[in-house]
Order: sequence, then C-alpha cells, then structure tokens
Amino acid sequence: MKLATLKTGADDVVAVVSPETDRYWPVSDLLGQPVDTMIDLIRIYDDVKTRLVPSGEGERLSDVTFAPPIVPSRNVMCVGKNYHAHAHEFTKSGFDSSAKDASDAIPTAPIIFTKAPETVIANGEDILYPTGLSDSIDYEAELGVVMGKSGRGISKADALDHVFGYLIINDMTARDLQSKHKQWFIGKSLDTFCPISSYIVTADEVKVDDLHLQCWVNGELRQDSNTSDLIFDVPTLIETLSGGLTLQPGDMIATGTPAGVGIGFDPPKYLARGDEIAIEISGLGRLANKVA
Amino acid sequence: MKLATLKTGADDVVAVVSPETDRYWPVSDLLGQPVDTMIDLIRIYDDVKTRLVPSGEGERLSDVTFAPPIVPSRNVMCVGKNYHAHAHEFTKSGFDSSAKDASDAIPTAPIIFTKAPETVIANGEDILYPTGLSDSIDYEAELGVVMGKSGRGISKADALDHVFGYLIINDMTARDLQSKHKQWFIGKSLDTFCPISSYIVTADEVKVDDLHLQCWVNGELRQDSNTSDLIFDVPTLIETLSGGLTLQPGDMIATGTPAGVGIGFDPPKYLARGDEIAIEISGLGRLANKVA
Repeated sequence: MKLATLKTGADDVVAVVSPETDRYWPVSDLLGQPVDTMIDLIRIYDDVKTRLVPSGEGERLSDVTFAPPIVPSRNVMCVGKNYHAHAHEFTKSGFDSSAKDASDAIPTAPIIFTKAPETVIANGEDILYPTGLSDSIDYEAELGVVMGKSGRGISKADALDHVFGYLIINDMTARDLQSKHKQWFIGKSLDTFCPISSYIVTADEVKVDDLHLQCWVNGELRQDSNTSDLIFDVPTLIETLSGGLTLQPGDMIATGTPAGVGIGFDPPKYLARGDEIAIEISGLGRLANKVA
Repeated sequence: MKLATLKTGADDVVAVVSPETDRYWPVSDLLGQPVDTMIDLIRIYDDVKTRLVPSGEGERLSDVTFAPPIVPSRNVMCVGKNYHAHAHEFTKSGFDSSAKDASDAIPTAPIIFTKAPETVIANGEDILYPTGLSDSIDYEAELGVVMGKSGRGISKADALDHVFGYLIINDMTARDLQSKHKQWFIGKSLDTFCPISSYIVTADEVKVDDLHLQCWVNGELRQDSNTSDLIFDVPTLIETLSGGLTLQPGDMIATGTPAGVGIGFDPPKYLARGDEIAIEISGLGRLANKVA
C-alpha cells in the first residue's frame, strides 16, 4: 500500500494513493474516524490496516499536491559511510572528519548523525542554495525507513517487524560545513536539505535487502547501486539505534548513500542553482528536486 | 523570572515559581488564558511578559513535583569540546573521534551533535545505567540555552535577543559508544541521558558570559569553571547554528562542558549505579540525579 499526505486545499489529508490509476482515498473516510497525520495513522496502523481497502472510485490524484508524507517528530537519524565504494570515495575526498586516513575508511560500527525534522521538504519543492554559507553542496540518494512499533533493545531478528514502510530520501549535504564542524549536524541540517519522496510504501510490499537505487543530476546517471551492498543492513541499523534509545512510531532513518556523490569525482561535481537531482528506488517511485 | 512545568496531579501546569518562598503561580491564571506547555508560553512571551506578575499568595511549591520545564520539539543541539582544558583532556583520553592527535584538540569551529528530545528527564529522576550496552558512562555539566524568537542568519550582535532563558543540563555520555560510532549521537542519546534543571531563568536575569559552574559526584567536586572560559560563546553558537537552519522557539542548546569529566582522570572515573551527580550554575539552581 502507498500512503501519502495530500494538500487538498483546506487541511492536509492522509490518504491511500494509487499513482498508477491517478486516484486517492482519504484514510479518514476509509476508517470512518479522523486521522490527521501520518504519525497518527502509524500509531493505530496494526489495528486498522485490514480496513484500509480502497472502496469506490476515489478522487483524482492529479487534482491535488503532495506534501511530505511524514514530518518526523524528532530529528531524522542518518547513517554515514554505509556502502563500501562510497566509504572509500568519501574518505579519499578529504572531507571525512570521521577517518584518520584511507585505512580507516570502512566503519566498524554504524556512524549515526541527525538532521532537524524541519529540513524535510516534499518531492518537487526547491532546495535552497545556501549562498554565502557553503559553495560545496552535494546530493546523497538514500533508502529511508519509517518506524512503526516503538521499541528498545530490538533484535535484528525482530527489527523488520518494527518497520512501517519505506521511502526515498535525498540527504543533502554542505561538504565544507560537514568537514569544518567535525560532527556533521551543521553541514546536514540546512533548511530544505531533506527532500523525501511523495509516498511511503508499506513494509509488506518491499524486499528491503534487494532494492535498486539510482540517482541522476540533470539527467546524468551518478549513483547506481543496490541495498544488498549496504555495509550495515536495515535490521542491524535498527538493533544499533534501539540499543539504548527507545525508537518511536514515525521515526525516520536514512540508511546511507552509495558511491557517486559529487565529491567522489575529481574535480568534485558540486551542485549549482538550477540543477535537478532525481532519485529512483525499486517500487518506491521517484524523488526530484531542483536547487533554487 | 523562574518558570517551571509542575506535576500537580491532573495535567502538567506551566508556572512562575519562587523556590526561595516555596510558592508558585500558574501562568494560565496570571494571564487569564490557557497556556498548556512551556513552548506555548515561549511563543507568546514577548506579548504577555509584563502580565506575568505573581499576584496573591500563590500555592505551595513543596506540594507538587517538578517535571522537566521543557521538552524540546526536536533534538537538543549540543556543543562538543567548548572549554580549552576539557578539549585537551578529552582528546588525550583517546575517546575523541573528532581529533587526529593532540595538536588537533582545540576546535576551529563549533562541533555540533544532537540528543533525542525524549532523553530529557527532570531534576531528581534516575539516570538508567545502560547494562550490557556501555560500561563507561560519564557526566558533563553544561549551561543550557532555551531559544525564544525564531530566526535564521542571526548575527552575534542580535543573538542574545533571541534567547528566552537558561537552565542546567547534564549531557550524559557513554564514552565507549561515543568513540566506537565516530559521530556522537548514539553515545549521547540513551534514554534518560539528558537531565535538566527544574526551572528556566529568563534571559533578563542572567549574565551569560560570567556564570560559575560546578559539578560534584557523590559530594566530590569534579568540575569548577566559568562560562567566561567558553571557546565559542553563546552569541557565536547561535550565529553558527542559525546560519543555515531556522532556529525555533523552544530549541535547546547545550553549550559544552568544562574540564573534570570522568575520562579526564587517570584511571578514568566512570559512573556506577548509586552515584549522584549534582550540578550548580550561578543563579540557575541545582540539578541532581542518581544513576540507577
């Protein structure tokens, strides 16, 4: 099932969507009870999911606009250097404050930093160029995980049962700030630096360890990988994150980016105003945003 | 003025408090309008502050319990290595993933990481020992800043006008996890790892660049410094954080800890179950929590 948050004119509406047939069905109508936000839906999802069956014609999706499907209630948890080839390209670039030298490129434990939730923007919205603050901004195509059931000390074996669904994230980064401030929050948390795709695909429809991920800048293929190449897979990330911190419904995890980011090139290919970054992941649709 | 959130039996109550006279006055009563949370008060504070004058006897503070005065709506933004002597002790300890060697100890730009907002606990609440996850947990006494007016690109000169008030933060840390995961979120964001003091003191009553800060473990003085020794002062931190990210009312900044943390000793003095950490900062009261 695909779930989105739609701008219909008045309040935002959480809806089951079918982009293929250009239709949507408001969740509140299907359930006969008000559901105001995606996080509200996630909290009751296990009890209501069998009733989330589209009935009737639905409404025309092309008549409305997608908001971000979810804005998490605390910072997005992001994983650094989680694909082998990217770990090498990043450490080699000279911007990696987490590694002492090339021999230190592959992490031995997940590297976790965060992005402020208000950096989230919708598919199609503009990424603001941070004039005067950074001149080395870069894209990072990533699989995003949206947590369902809360939990602490979740084992790898149980981890995927705690996932609500998946989406696409562009973990935009100001490379100079990422390096200068050592810890990465500042370089990762500029306003508009977290575009996410239009809908969440529920976990039952996603084979998370075999997703093809591609990223283009102005139509040029830059990243082309598969989640089977993750150094730390999704169950491992959930086990690590929940070890000491209780994960909550609606928490969002960005699982890391593969090789092919701008600083992987020599000379680096930084983003400029007018550039369009487009990302596709098998079954999760397409995320495209311009730099303005 | 001192402002707190009190557990009075039913809902939590935001109140003006006078610990000296054991009295409190609910803000909703003083204003004649409902104010449910501290963040709600911060949003309207400039318009209502002249009416926040205690009138009448008030109620007895010792009859109620302090909740955390505020739970921020996104992660607490924390500063690493922001006192000279501490920067040296931390880099020397071997746990500092942000420095290549001793010559790299003093940062040239603020190091910013985050803690999940749900790690916040009240004065007097227990810090949970993370059995099986870490055996090197440590205290960090810090001045906390609570933001008032929102803003992006705030200059140093204007920065203090955007501050609502100040409190005490204990930036609890699992040293082994902090080092192992390179980026510090995991080692800093264990449940209960962010004790904060009972009330916020509004900015008009605080001389932020001259606050005496002390920390004791089981009565033994461990940290004894002054905010005049900060490498990056509060205006600089606000200018840096707001450079690319819009700061919001209720955002919380932990400004860094001075020398004297557990790993500054040889051998390190890690915390054990039953230990009590007590912190005092001039005019901001006392924060004391036990490890359980």
